[in-house]
Amino acid sequence: MFEPPIQRLIDELARLPGVGRKSAQRLAFHLLTVEEEDARRLARAVVEMREQVHLCRRCFNVTDGDECSICRDLRRDASVVCIVERAQDIVVVERTREFRGRYHVLGGAISPIEGIGPERLRFGELLARVRAEGITEAIVATNPTVEGDTTALYLARVLKPEGVRVTRLASGLPVGGDLDYADELTLGRALVGRQEM
Amino acid sequence: MFEPPIQRLIDELARLPGVGRKSAQRLAFHLLTVEEEDARRLARAVVEMREQVHLCRRCFNVTDGDECSICRDLRRDASVVCIVERAQDIVVVERTREFRGRYHVLGGAISPIEGIGPERLRFGELLARVRAEGITEAIVATNPTVEGDTTALYLARVLKPEGVRVTRLASGLPVGGDLDYADELTLGRALVGRQEM
Repeated sequence: MFEPPIQRLIDELARLPGVGRKSAQRLAFHLLTVEEEDARRLARAVVEMREQVHLCRRCFNVTDGDECSICRDLRRDASVVCIVERAQDIVVVERTREFRGRYHVLGGAISPIEGIGPERLRFGELLARVRAEGITEAIVATNPTVEGDTTALYLARVLKPEGVRVTRLASGLPVGGDLDYADELTLGRALVGRQEM
Repeated sequence: MFEPPIQRLIDELARLPGVGRKSAQRLAFHLLTVEEEDARRLARAVVEMREQVHLCRRCFNVTDGDECSICRDLRRDASVVCIVERAQDIVVVERTREFRGRYHVLGGAISPIEGIGPERLRFGELLARVRAEGITEAIVATNPTVEGDTTALYLARVLKPEGVRVTRLASGLPVGGDLDYADELTLGRALVGRQEM
């Protein structure tokens, strides 16, 4: 056991995902030896993020206002929605510069193992948007995992009866990759999704 | 780029040792989605640790007062000092319950590669203690690394002329270990340090 203020910090750090007791201890002692202002700046960054960042009331992306910058952008196509699991996935899709529609953040993926059913995710909000905003196409960008697949199937079942065209990001070989290094599942998907040349 | 308050937090987290851009991003978004009170408690733990924890003015161990609990403990043998690189090493030695003397935290190890010379470490303070506190034995508990070895040699050269007996923690096979799994350096040290039975 360390001095109580150190132990309390170690305990808090160890609650973070991917941070074990040993790394928490290393981080705490690091924060003890850096300039006091550096430690305070980290603490302030945590608090200020929580004070200043909210979720967009439309798509649940992060924003400093009521609606996020993408939803506020009138040049974006409001009839197409890209559905992602988490807010940070939006940045990844944006980086491609290939998508000019809006987003919808589900807040996770359906996972029976972790006890996450559809009611825990933002499907209701999505359906309300489809009906209110005249969405005609949904691009499902959930992860290529069992949970992401399940969520994609559920989305198709819910959205198609609303007259929405539902597509999903292609799974296949990563660009610049090597056949030798592709796992069989990825290769299998690449085969199923093969395209006419 | 994320919203500025998120990006600032990611930047601060990425300054921590062993935290890359990707983990910093994951941690920041984790802190965005947990209960606000959980995020605030982490921030508070950082600030309170820096406010409440100081370095012992004698041995540079961590303490909530002027001197650490070990230096204040009159039952401890003030004539023996165990010299460690970092304050967190003290807890490790204490756990053995084999040592009843005091400590001295150098604040690191001599490393020409990282540009850390003896003047950056607390050798002067150690020498002053040796002369003022009647220290007659020093147990060097620096890490069994090149830097720790260099520091140990330097300590011996500085302390022996003061009439201090200098010993170093034995290097060798870990208890419960298997010869098969011992690297050759460790095995080499175990051989050199072999003990009469």
